[in-house]
Amino acid sequence: MIDVHKAQQIIQAAIPVLGSESVPLLESLGRVLARDIVATEDSPGTDISTKDGFTLHHKSLTGASPQSPVFLKIIGESAAGRPCGAAVKAGEAVRIMAGGMVPDGADTVVGLEIVTEDHGYVVCTSAPRRGGSVRLRGALLKNGETVFRAGMVVGPAEVGVLASLRRAYVPVHRRPLVAIATTGDELADFHEPASPSKTMSSNLYALAAQVLEAGAVPLCIGIVGDELETLQTHLREALHADVIITSGGMSKGRYDLVRESFAALGMDMKLSTLLGKPGKPAIFGKIGASLVFGLPGSPPAAMISFEQFIRPAILRMMGHARVPSRSAADDRQEGTGDGLFSLYQLFKQGRAAMPAENGPSPIPLRMSSP
Amino acid sequence: MIDVHKAQQIIQAAIPVLGSESVPLLESLGRVLARDIVATEDSPGTDISTKDGFTLHHKSLTGASPQSPVFLKIIGESAAGRPCGAAVKAGEAVRIMAGGMVPDGADTVVGLEIVTEDHGYVVCTSAPRRGGSVRLRGALLKNGETVFRAGMVVGPAEVGVLASLRRAYVPVHRRPLVAIATTGDELADFHEPASPSKTMSSNLYALAAQVLEAGAVPLCIGIVGDELETLQTHLREALHADVIITSGGMSKGRYDLVRESFAALGMDMKLSTLLGKPGKPAIFGKIGASLVFGLPGSPPAAMISFEQFIRPAILRMMGHARVPSRSAADDRQEGTGDGLFSLYQLFKQGRAAMPAENGPSPIPLRMSSP
Repeated sequence: MIDVHKAQQIIQAAIPVLGSESVPLLESLGRVLARDIVATEDSPGTDISTKDGFTLHHKSLTGASPQSPVFLKIIGESAAGRPCGAAVKAGEAVRIMAGGMVPDGADTVVGLEIVTEDHGYVVCTSAPRRGGSVRLRGALLKNGETVFRAGMVVGPAEVGVLASLRRAYVPVHRRPLVAIATTGDELADFHEPASPSKTMSSNLYALAAQVLEAGAVPLCIGIVGDELETLQTHLREALHADVIITSGGMSKGRYDLVRESFAALGMDMKLSTLLGKPGKPAIFGKIGASLVFGLPGSPPAAMISFEQFIRPAILRMMGHARVPSRSAADDRQEGTGDGLFSLYQLFKQGRAAMPAENGPSPIPLRMSSP
Repeated sequence: MIDVHKAQQIIQAAIPVLGSESVPLLESLGRVLARDIVATEDSPGTDISTKDGFTLHHKSLTGASPQSPVFLKIIGESAAGRPCGAAVKAGEAVRIMAGGMVPDGADTVVGLEIVTEDHGYVVCTSAPRRGGSVRLRGALLKNGETVFRAGMVVGPAEVGVLASLRRAYVPVHRRPLVAIATTGDELADFHEPASPSKTMSSNLYALAAQVLEAGAVPLCIGIVGDELETLQTHLREALHADVIITSGGMSKGRYDLVRESFAALGMDMKLSTLLGKPGKPAIFGKIGASLVFGLPGSPPAAMISFEQFIRPAILRMMGHARVPSRSAADDRQEGTGDGLFSLYQLFKQGRAAMPAENGPSPIPLRMSSP
């Protein structure tokens, strides 16, 4: 027998970080950057004004004071996105708006609040510092500067910055394809007629929902019967997946069947009876490059096992550096499931099993003992 | 001028909860139930055994003791999903597995640990209580019983329970369609050639990412120029959306243009200058059934306004009862943005603007002053 923490370590050591793919900007939300993002141009791309006023060459204001005001001829206008074509010469000024390009020949902006206008001239009674109210080309970012490091999680603000860097596509770590199969002759799916001797394979859907919540892509293989050959055929079809999850087939007798199927496919068994409870064994290993998890069939036990072992593995595969670990309190609660009965009880007792409202929870799902 | 809290109240009072739609089970993840979920059959649908053993009628064990063991003839087997066809008569027993149907005529299960087998007979030396180790039909749920209440958020465990209730489709509140337009002649999108006088319209993407994170559906209208007619044409095209967001056009001069466009479309203006800062006005109102938010153009200010006002509105529209509100500390930080400059600075200072890693954050985005 092996404790949960040790099992998690063995699993984490076997997890590869998946390669990268280029996705459209908006699809990078929530994903992990696979490469550094480097600016490919200066930002701003030209000198721009940070306020509404007039732009001019600083030398034109030499000696300006209330006693000897300087008159500069207004020769044009520069608004954001609408630059002024002309260059500014000595004795001239261009009306400029916040965000407007500073034209050739100008190096300084004087704000509206310290000047007056007089018949096509701007009247200056003071000289602000040279370069005042001008944001120089490259002041925010220089061409070649690293903006984001590989390993960063992309949120909405990063999406905005990536857009401003003209990144229509973003290199992120691939999301694992996670195949899910449930085993058991007593299981039925939606397309099968209701029967008192059959139970809906709720694990197929609950586990797929957990896979979605973790950010990966579920592939529902479906219900696999209790025969060795069927099980092997279905598992073989799932071998293109990055992760294979089976649930059920972990009770006495059935357990050997699942192990045998895995073994026949060349499984490198790394762990068994993960949960360390009689009657609730579980399996972890690799078949080729696919990670294989055999979970118990009881819905709460399967869901808890997912949170303990598979969710951290999925996050690691997607390039997440920080992977939440379960607390000691959670460990004490492992394997308390008694089939759907306890799941229903949990809900009747106030939905103790629910992750936080308003979206996926960053902490593991907790199920308290009924 | 109006404080943020009061503004949030005015907005919330104007928000409708959207109607319901029926979505495939897995797509209900993270959505809010629009109707109660009621069981339409008993669960389990028949009496089943909770352990491996033998099932029989309790009367057959009358008087059983170590001194006078009772011998019952084993007439068949009932495994999970493979019921035994025969009825059990006095003096008979059926071998049964955990999850197996209890056959007609039987009412009790005796576990393997308290019996022995002898040439086709099971030998009982004690009589457990009547009904022992049997889960009766309807013990988990009775036909007609309410399992989940409308208003509940669907998580992975609920998906599992809904599957077990044979709900292939789930009634949930609709997700709002959120149209996003940015205004400004200086803005460019990916398809336009780079130019030093143009800035990428990062708000289009950052706001779309925020909409996705809140669980709604973004509709990018794109960049709208600074002419009244263009603006009105684009806004008119967005009127089928549940929410319309514009960003920019909130500086002096431009502000009137946006207000005028809204007014020409029949806007019922409920709030303006929400953020209550000079130069950073914002607008809220309704055009027909569409909610309209006019946000400032500075990326951090637009993102903060979204978190303050639009995210809570979207959650309310989707039926969420608990909508996170911003803290007083957040209020002090409102409107600190100075364009992308501060956004870049925030990132350089350790990504203060990021929501929690590993998925959408349930608390509002916080941006600290650079």
